[in-house]
Amino acid sequence: MEEITLNKYSEVKPKFLKRIIWLIVNKTIFRCLVGDKLFAVRNAILRMFGAQLPKRVLIYSSCDIYAPWNLKVGKFSCLGPHTEIYNKDRIVIGENAVISQGTYLCSASHDITSLLLPLVTKPITIGNRAWVAADAFIGPGVTIGEGAVVGARAAVFRDVEPWTVVGGNPAKFIKAREIKD
Amino acid sequence: MEEITLNKYSEVKPKFLKRIIWLIVNKTIFRCLVGDKLFAVRNAILRMFGAQLPKRVLIYSSCDIYAPWNLKVGKFSCLGPHTEIYNKDRIVIGENAVISQGTYLCSASHDITSLLLPLVTKPITIGNRAWVAADAFIGPGVTIGEGAVVGARAAVFRDVEPWTVVGGNPAKFIKAREIKD
Amino acid sequence: MEEITLNKYSEVKPKFLKRIIWLIVNKTIFRCLVGDKLFAVRNAILRMFGAQLPKRVLIYSSCDIYAPWNLKVGKFSCLGPHTEIYNKDRIVIGENAVISQGTYLCSASHDITSLLLPLVTKPITIGNRAWVAADAFIGPGVTIGEGAVVGARAAVFRDVEPWTVVGGNPAKFIKAREIKD
Repeated sequence: MEEITLNKYSEVKPKFLKRIIWLIVNKTIFRCLVGDKLFAVRNAILRMFGAQLPKRVLIYSSCDIYAPWNLKVGKFSCLGPHTEIYNKDRIVIGENAVISQGTYLCSASHDITSLLLPLVTKPITIGNRAWVAADAFIGPGVTIGEGAVVGARAAVFRDVEPWTVVGGNPAKFIKAREIKD
Repeated sequence: MEEITLNKYSEVKPKFLKRIIWLIVNKTIFRCLVGDKLFAVRNAILRMFGAQLPKRVLIYSSCDIYAPWNLKVGKFSCLGPHTEIYNKDRIVIGENAVISQGTYLCSASHDITSLLLPLVTKPITIGNRAWVAADAFIGPGVTIGEGAVVGARAAVFRDVEPWTVVGGNPAKFIKAREIKD
Repeated sequence: MEEITLNKYSEVKPKFLKRIIWLIVNKTIFRCLVGDKLFAVRNAILRMFGAQLPKRVLIYSSCDIYAPWNLKVGKFSCLGPHTEIYNKDRIVIGENAVISQGTYLCSASHDITSLLLPLVTKPITIGNRAWVAADAFIGPGVTIGEGAVVGARAAVFRDVEPWTVVGGNPAKFIKAREIKD
């Protein structure tokens, strides 16, 4: 055990150059294209880097996206200000979903059974009409069901059933979501 | 149910122009007025936008305030670095209160009984001598009682009794606060 | 009790000038030295301000450090992007430790038994081979044992035993960490 040191850790970094170029674009041009009205320009840039976006998706200029080529968002959905989309693995967001400000979608972790902590990634799926409230955290491999609500600051490490409300850290079931429309 | 889509969502945005102007001021001039000694200049700017501030209030230059006209702070209170005052609804902070770095006061939410997720706002009140520690989250409608302590990283969704200490996410009662002065 | 007001609060600020100079360096030059390859330059700057760093430590350019002279990090360890090292008191990190992005190491608090909320600081110690995952919070006086894992978004206020996994807010024991290497 004593022989293993983290300096031997090496991570496969596919599309490294593309990633660097996108990072610069995200932190400069993308950031400057502020406001609701320029959403189509931002989406066009994201599509150039491989994101699958229909016409009417609202992604804020302060959103940090790791890899647009690993992102798919359904129509009428919104990624709010200062959201962090850490999609080393694929992140798929449904239609009419709302990801509120400050939320962190984290698709990567480490294998803690090894001292070298090798990277492990798992996709994240967020269903249609789900709402992930402010400052929430969604861990790798999690599926948020259709219409589910993740409360503000909740930290979600397990799947969330459709049309339920969860909250807390770790997130727990609070109640079923009833629609009165 | 299938007919309702979020593209039909529309939010009333009162004082829209004032809000834009303030946003620019907050992110530029306000940010540059760093240091304890310039607190009076920062306060003067906030008062121009409608904030109710007595003479001796310390608001850091890295503080993000949504609407100064919805903010009232009592004397000798402090809003620390990188605090976020999301006062779509009124936020009132008492005297001798301390809001530590990274805290998020969030006065807005959505009505989850409707698929359109209409905005709902509720005021936040923080009592005299209360301390909200680093990185805490205070939700809409919450009242923090006089002298209460909200622990670091706590997420508060219910009222906190005066002179009590709460912590965790969701925040729970930890103990009564005893003063030995 | 009514006579005590926070305007009488005064905090001892040792090395005040050094602190200001370092703050400016941290927010400007240090920030610009991006990338893995410039880690040695960043470390050299940190050493000039008193940090105890062996040759192979990786500290990201977006890391905020309060006082390099209160920081000691062991070889092959890493402080990730946007970590916050609030070391008013001493923070010692072992060898082969990983502090992931967004983590907040907070060595300061206030004495809540006094209305003046005097500052109290306690050192933080993180053992060899420990992993503190993304966005975690480590409070003052906490020792994270060797090989321990602190889950993403966990908030730790008590010591963590070696080779255990904790998570949640407040952080609780989840399981022992088994190594299969």
